[in-house]
Amino acid sequence: MSATIVDGKAVAAELREEIAAEIAAMNQSGARPPSLAVVLCGDDPASAIYVRNKGRAAEAVGMRFGLHTPPATSTTEQLVELVKALDADDDVDGILVQVPLPAQIDEQAVTQWISREKDADGFHPYNLGLLAAGHEGTVAPCTPLGCMELLRGSGFAPSGRRAVVIGRSPNVGRPLAFLLTNADATVTVCHSRTQDLPSVCRDADILVAAIGRPRMVDASYVKPGAFVIDVGTTPENGRLSGDVDRGSVEPVAGWLTPVPGGVGPMTVAMVLRNTLALARVRRALVRV
Amino acid sequence: MSATIVDGKAVAAELREEIAAEIAAMNQSGARPPSLAVVLCGDDPASAIYVRNKGRAAEAVGMRFGLHTPPATSTTEQLVELVKALDADDDVDGILVQVPLPAQIDEQAVTQWISREKDADGFHPYNLGLLAAGHEGTVAPCTPLGCMELLRGSGFAPSGRRAVVIGRSPNVGRPLAFLLTNADATVTVCHSRTQDLPSVCRDADILVAAIGRPRMVDASYVKPGAFVIDVGTTPENGRLSGDVDRGSVEPVAGWLTPVPGGVGPMTVAMVLRNTLALARVRRALVRV
Repeated sequence: MSATIVDGKAVAAELREEIAAEIAAMNQSGARPPSLAVVLCGDDPASAIYVRNKGRAAEAVGMRFGLHTPPATSTTEQLVELVKALDADDDVDGILVQVPLPAQIDEQAVTQWISREKDADGFHPYNLGLLAAGHEGTVAPCTPLGCMELLRGSGFAPSGRRAVVIGRSPNVGRPLAFLLTNADATVTVCHSRTQDLPSVCRDADILVAAIGRPRMVDASYVKPGAFVIDVGTTPENGRLSGDVDRGSVEPVAGWLTPVPGGVGPMTVAMVLRNTLALARVRRALVRV
Repeated sequence: MSATIVDGKAVAAELREEIAAEIAAMNQSGARPPSLAVVLCGDDPASAIYVRNKGRAAEAVGMRFGLHTPPATSTTEQLVELVKALDADDDVDGILVQVPLPAQIDEQAVTQWISREKDADGFHPYNLGLLAAGHEGTVAPCTPLGCMELLRGSGFAPSGRRAVVIGRSPNVGRPLAFLLTNADATVTVCHSRTQDLPSVCRDADILVAAIGRPRMVDASYVKPGAFVIDVGTTPENGRLSGDVDRGSVEPVAGWLTPVPGGVGPMTVAMVLRNTLALARVRRALVRV
């Protein structure tokens, strides 16, 4: 037996097709297509690639895409003014500020001006609070949403299952725990202070590694047949390494999301889905 | 061996003394004392008792207390206008709307007008989102805060411990899980879909019962020596019953919070602490 390798590219492609069909229907009904504004500040080459991919994906599904590239020497105040202007622009449905920002910029001071109605990342405290309370609202953080779609795309229902999430980051580990709880899994959140981590993880039918330590999770963490989701993306020698030791885990797990090609491709698709959802609310096509 | 019975009244009394001392210091510095406004609508006798207790506790610590009692025949619109007026009143620091409201009132439509700066209950989605993301802000839901104080008052440090919370309500189970995660416990949230619940609970160094089913948790759920917190308050035969079968659990647990006299007395003290914290922010005595 060897784990089924979950094809994130294929699941993401299906989702993009669904999004494209919904946007086409919006167009036919006379509503403006959704519009995503991205702020890219600085010279980080990986950020430039991510943003280019988001732009291509947006345009491929029929979404409008506005790229804003203030110079790397910008001040916090200049970025605040830009984000405020985008937030006030009625023609913008979703706003993303690509991180990391240059060192002189106060990231929180900038992103706090993205209102919850334009929160394409799903990071706004109000939106996170709804999710945490069990009300799945308009948007949610993209990487956790992508993990849920990989489960769904594999026909793996979380209800009644034990899930263990290693990592309690505000953007990944915690919101994924909320989504899994909302989907009726019994969820345990682990972190650096967890005692006897492999033993806790061996209870998991769904094991999520979101730590950022390459190959930390080996077979000793995995219940036979478990669905193992690798969220790790640590740059090593010019490529991305996951948190799961694939050679060790693949013979034990039932499913494994690879790095690259697992969670990564889902994240961009989820940014598009969040933006579409925000646009539908702003066009009053759905009630919230 | 028999569990230490945790005295919630004593811990709550200590907290009220600390709050009284802080308010006395505010007065000495020339700042206005905190002011709590409570809306009591309808004829529920239990609600009237709760509100009277809150009023007495507020006045005992030197806090101002405004009681608003619109008639039981009020409309949603009338309560909305009242809450909006309290929210706009610069002299009000914290607002509570006592539930249950009469059947004709849309509770969510009323309470959504309490801004996060006056959120004495700690229920505002923005404040819950901060807590869920790991940033302990100005306020948090009162019953979960009370549970944390019972642990602290007993000298029981959550860091590195396994905690299991039975119940995923937005006001108790979920926010308590966030507080415990933030305090470095390894937390599992259980609920009606959890399989083999007693076995999951037996891993817990801290076991929280917040289900609302009298005496459901017996010794088969309890790891020897565990700290068992009973949040249940189901009315039965004119008194409140907890979720823990005390006769069965007391010989096994290390600590047990009783019903009544455990979590209950803490909740009122935490309303006062939230209101004090909101007042300190509104007086610019602390930065957030």
